[in-house]
Amino acid sequence: MNKLLEKLVKKHIECSKDGHVAEYIPELARVNPYQLGISVHDGTKLISAGACYTPFTLQSVSKPLVLILALMDHGESYVFEKVGKEPTGDPFNSIVRLETYKKQKPYNPMINAGAISIAGLIKGASVDEKINRIVHFIRVLANNQEISVNTDVSNSEKSTGDRNRSIAYFLKDIGNIEGDPLETLDVYFAQCAIEITCQDLANIGMVLALDGKSPQTGEQLFPKQYAKIAKAYMTTCGMYDGSGEFAIQVGIPAKSGVGGGIVAIAPGKFGIGVFGPALNEKGNSIAGLALLKELSETLDLNIF
Amino acid sequence: MNKLLEKLVKKHIECSKDGHVAEYIPELARVNPYQLGISVHDGTKLISAGACYTPFTLQSVSKPLVLILALMDHGESYVFEKVGKEPTGDPFNSIVRLETYKKQKPYNPMINAGAISIAGLIKGASVDEKINRIVHFIRVLANNQEISVNTDVSNSEKSTGDRNRSIAYFLKDIGNIEGDPLETLDVYFAQCAIEITCQDLANIGMVLALDGKSPQTGEQLFPKQYAKIAKAYMTTCGMYDGSGEFAIQVGIPAKSGVGGGIVAIAPGKFGIGVFGPALNEKGNSIAGLALLKELSETLDLNIF
Amino acid sequence: MNKLLEKLVKKHIECSKDGHVAEYIPELARVNPYQLGISVHDGTKLISAGACYTPFTLQSVSKPLVLILALMDHGESYVFEKVGKEPTGDPFNSIVRLETYKKQKPYNPMINAGAISIAGLIKGASVDEKINRIVHFIRVLANNQEISVNTDVSNSEKSTGDRNRSIAYFLKDIGNIEGDPLETLDVYFAQCAIEITCQDLANIGMVLALDGKSPQTGEQLFPKQYAKIAKAYMTTCGMYDGSGEFAIQVGIPAKSGVGGGIVAIAPGKFGIGVFGPALNEKGNSIAGLALLKELSETLDLNIF
Amino acid sequence: MNKLLEKLVKKHIECSKDGHVAEYIPELARVNPYQLGISVHDGTKLISAGACYTPFTLQSVSKPLVLILALMDHGESYVFEKVGKEPTGDPFNSIVRLETYKKQKPYNPMINAGAISIAGLIKGASVDEKINRIVHFIRVLANNQEISVNTDVSNSEKSTGDRNRSIAYFLKDIGNIEGDPLETLDVYFAQCAIEITCQDLANIGMVLALDGKSPQTGEQLFPKQYAKIAKAYMTTCGMYDGSGEFAIQVGIPAKSGVGGGIVAIAPGKFGIGVFGPALNEKGNSIAGLALLKELSETLDLNIF
Repeated sequence: MNKLLEKLVKKHIECSKDGHVAEYIPELARVNPYQLGISVHDGTKLISAGACYTPFTLQSVSKPLVLILALMDHGESYVFEKVGKEPTGDPFNSIVRLETYKKQKPYNPMINAGAISIAGLIKGASVDEKINRIVHFIRVLANNQEISVNTDVSNSEKSTGDRNRSIAYFLKDIGNIEGDPLETLDVYFAQCAIEITCQDLANIGMVLALDGKSPQTGEQLFPKQYAKIAKAYMTTCGMYDGSGEFAIQVGIPAKSGVGGGIVAIAPGKFGIGVFGPALNEKGNSIAGLALLKELSETLDLNIF
Repeated sequence: MNKLLEKLVKKHIECSKDGHVAEYIPELARVNPYQLGISVHDGTKLISAGACYTPFTLQSVSKPLVLILALMDHGESYVFEKVGKEPTGDPFNSIVRLETYKKQKPYNPMINAGAISIAGLIKGASVDEKINRIVHFIRVLANNQEISVNTDVSNSEKSTGDRNRSIAYFLKDIGNIEGDPLETLDVYFAQCAIEITCQDLANIGMVLALDGKSPQTGEQLFPKQYAKIAKAYMTTCGMYDGSGEFAIQVGIPAKSGVGGGIVAIAPGKFGIGVFGPALNEKGNSIAGLALLKELSETLDLNIF
Repeated sequence: MNKLLEKLVKKHIECSKDGHVAEYIPELARVNPYQLGISVHDGTKLISAGACYTPFTLQSVSKPLVLILALMDHGESYVFEKVGKEPTGDPFNSIVRLETYKKQKPYNPMINAGAISIAGLIKGASVDEKINRIVHFIRVLANNQEISVNTDVSNSEKSTGDRNRSIAYFLKDIGNIEGDPLETLDVYFAQCAIEITCQDLANIGMVLALDGKSPQTGEQLFPKQYAKIAKAYMTTCGMYDGSGEFAIQVGIPAKSGVGGGIVAIAPGKFGIGVFGPALNEKGNSIAGLALLKELSETLDLNIF
Repeated sequence: MNKLLEKLVKKHIECSKDGHVAEYIPELARVNPYQLGISVHDGTKLISAGACYTPFTLQSVSKPLVLILALMDHGESYVFEKVGKEPTGDPFNSIVRLETYKKQKPYNPMINAGAISIAGLIKGASVDEKINRIVHFIRVLANNQEISVNTDVSNSEKSTGDRNRSIAYFLKDIGNIEGDPLETLDVYFAQCAIEITCQDLANIGMVLALDGKSPQTGEQLFPKQYAKIAKAYMTTCGMYDGSGEFAIQVGIPAKSGVGGGIVAIAPGKFGIGVFGPALNEKGNSIAGLALLKELSETLDLNIF
């Protein structure tokens, strides 16, 4: 496995040249695009290659994880009152369907609108407490107590977050979020700015691969059904408007972020973390996609 | 297994009362809504319960199957020039994105627009030859030489098919289909009117579960990769705009039709055919959904 | 006036170089783009300049005229059941709102969808009789018995009319048109292919300027209210998705066609016909717009 | 005229029963819906009937007026970089086209998005100065130095203005407004909360009827061309998504507001102010519409 990963990193890092790093905040814009790292957890240990220790921010990879925390806080029926279950084929920051969808809620929690709605559900007496609860949950999932929010990034997200503010106020207008939209966004910006590595993502992926069980302790960290929900969403809409293509080409649940991270899951087998900051036009790591495609073929991971 | 299926049919046929049969053509409108049948192929044999011998028409269940035939006729790269890979969240007969999507092709082959585009790709010197090739392919998949088109249904589909004609002419206008749109629709209406039973669907599902291999002969009936593609589409957009919900609740690839049929697949394990003509508001068999949910939970079929 | 028109033609014909003739049918594609003609009827006589005798086809200029005939055939309340009264800001051939508008009818009769709906309302025992009634009506309005359909053009319109067929079948599907959609389109294609000159358009414009009275005989050719309706539509949506700009820049009711014609009206004063086949990107005569802007300013025609 | 107005008020106040007052802020919700007033300025004097002294807030009636001030501040070419010229057929608070329109600006300044964009253009060193400049301009137009902002209303607008905040942040995101979106909204909420009467509106309408001249002094208060622009917009999109219908039924430039006010103009002849707080489903005064229709017919005001 180790040799395989080394070979795949070496081969696919090349296509980083065809992508671009996210440029809407300086912290992302100045990242070296020519990086690629992978870490695979096989239930017992981590096998890694490339830039596997390089920290980056979760960004949208946080969406299915915070969803699980919201499900733990409120249960399925309340959460599904707030967000739908269907993929959209629209860009991640689209606002159109909030106006046109008669049910007046985001189609799913993997697009920004739905993720902001979910951020609004996290319990806590203050913004800080909510953020702390999310960070704590990610630490548990990643089995890494060092994880924290990169406040430079969250501040930058906040200062450039006009589209997200537009979405949040629309959600407020249709009664989808209850508190102050700007406080909800503070939680959302912070969850996006949590800093992790491929190895952290691989551990998180392994927890999902085990339907919520810790690979370290065997403890059920959250209900199995919530793992299934998260992985179903990851499959139908985890890769922005490139989710269908990913299902066809790679065939495993995964969630990407514009920080260049992807968490992917071979159910029952592997948790996979990838980092490749050069993105394609849909916002997915271009080298990460290529690497995962070959990894899935080589190890026969396609779940369909 | 036999007892389980009997029990599930008996339990879930009740919710047929909450649905309605499709009413746009007389042949569907006069079907008794209070029916439920299931057939499961385990790789060796069929186990069935309820209305498992009742014939019904494939309707949209034909879409992934004719897609496979088009892939065999033209290969992936040409087919994907014609149809996209992404789910939409829109109703099955929506035309909006043909105008708004800058790539000027249907988002995927599971919605009507994409399926009509695919029907236009089937090789054959005449409409009849194209239809015959499709029927022959379905017979092979179902291991049943008796399967044929119900011409009363295809004629009715044709006489009420104004929305599909609108879609076909739009596809022609944007250069997506090449021949006569009305001849393409003749193929499409015929594929929808192919008459099968749950047992046929279970066999078809088993071929997909075996990635293209016949459970009878072990012969590779079509390339493994095309089975993966079909099952990926079925997962992200096989159940109309209820696909995401199905992925969350049942968690297996499936395709439904307004004739009440559903083909579902437990990869490597089972091919499943369901018939329940009472539909929910999205066009999926209401009792079929309930039955599949419990079946998936009981047998732990969820692939995520 | 004569000198003014000569001067304006000479000045504004230049900007024909910035436009392009319509190219979807050969008869339009081979028209010399560098032409400009104008004819103004002042209630007593015609004053003309430039290409005022060159025949061209009505195309969308027919829309408000056939609307008046439909109003005469059925009255306001029935016609307004079939088409709405609101401008859309969408391209003339857009189909999106037929799906998204809950009232399931075209927004107005100046876009293709609405004009096809209106063509379906014209009384007559056969397609030919309907077309003859329209031609007769145009002859009366233009005070020219020589006017007829250019059948080469109508045949070409028909052979390339896939988008319009898509629209017509959609209208049929939502119950907006009653007869055979293809026969309705035969009427529509014929009305678009009626051949006229600037002088004819100026006479038609004068009838509208006089609220339905013939400038020759003083006879009320159609009810005053229908003239008001036609001119209101021409103001809010007569120049495709450039109608608002035309209202701001020129300020008079007008209707353009992709044949290069524009009929414009200074209520109570002038009927104006313009021909300039080079079109801007919205389908309006580019030199015609420039000429009408200066004419409106010079003669203080702006009605606002 | 006086008797006519009295008669019309008495007759049309009845249909107030079929409408409802705006209810999104308490100040509007508690207005007595059964009121109707009209004031007509004939260039020399005001003739009034009904609730012509009752103060109400401008709301959207402010939109064309602040547009004129923005044109005076920046000129046409800069203003039209920020807002388009086309009607939309969409509800006043729609956000969809900000995402779908490739030019990334509001279609016109009569919908909320465009009006907020325009509010962002008003010159002034501070929010207060901008508001004061608007109030001053309205006072001049109305020839009434008593006019001021109802701060209870502007505070209520602000506290319930989540949809407008969503729009403003979207405008910020696409670079359409430059300053702080919330400060821009403070200007916008204040302009909507300016309190006037029918008599004020009639005077404002008369200034527009005279293409910018004061009926009192003959002074040109703003350029004639800006009056033409305002009246063109009022005709194509002044009455929300009921503008086309108003053009057909009444046929004069007008702008309505959810406070129940309508300013209407018979160019060269009359300025008209109406107040009827019971609104139809599109947000226009239901009794006001009926009254204006009969007034237009009786005095032959239709400009088409």
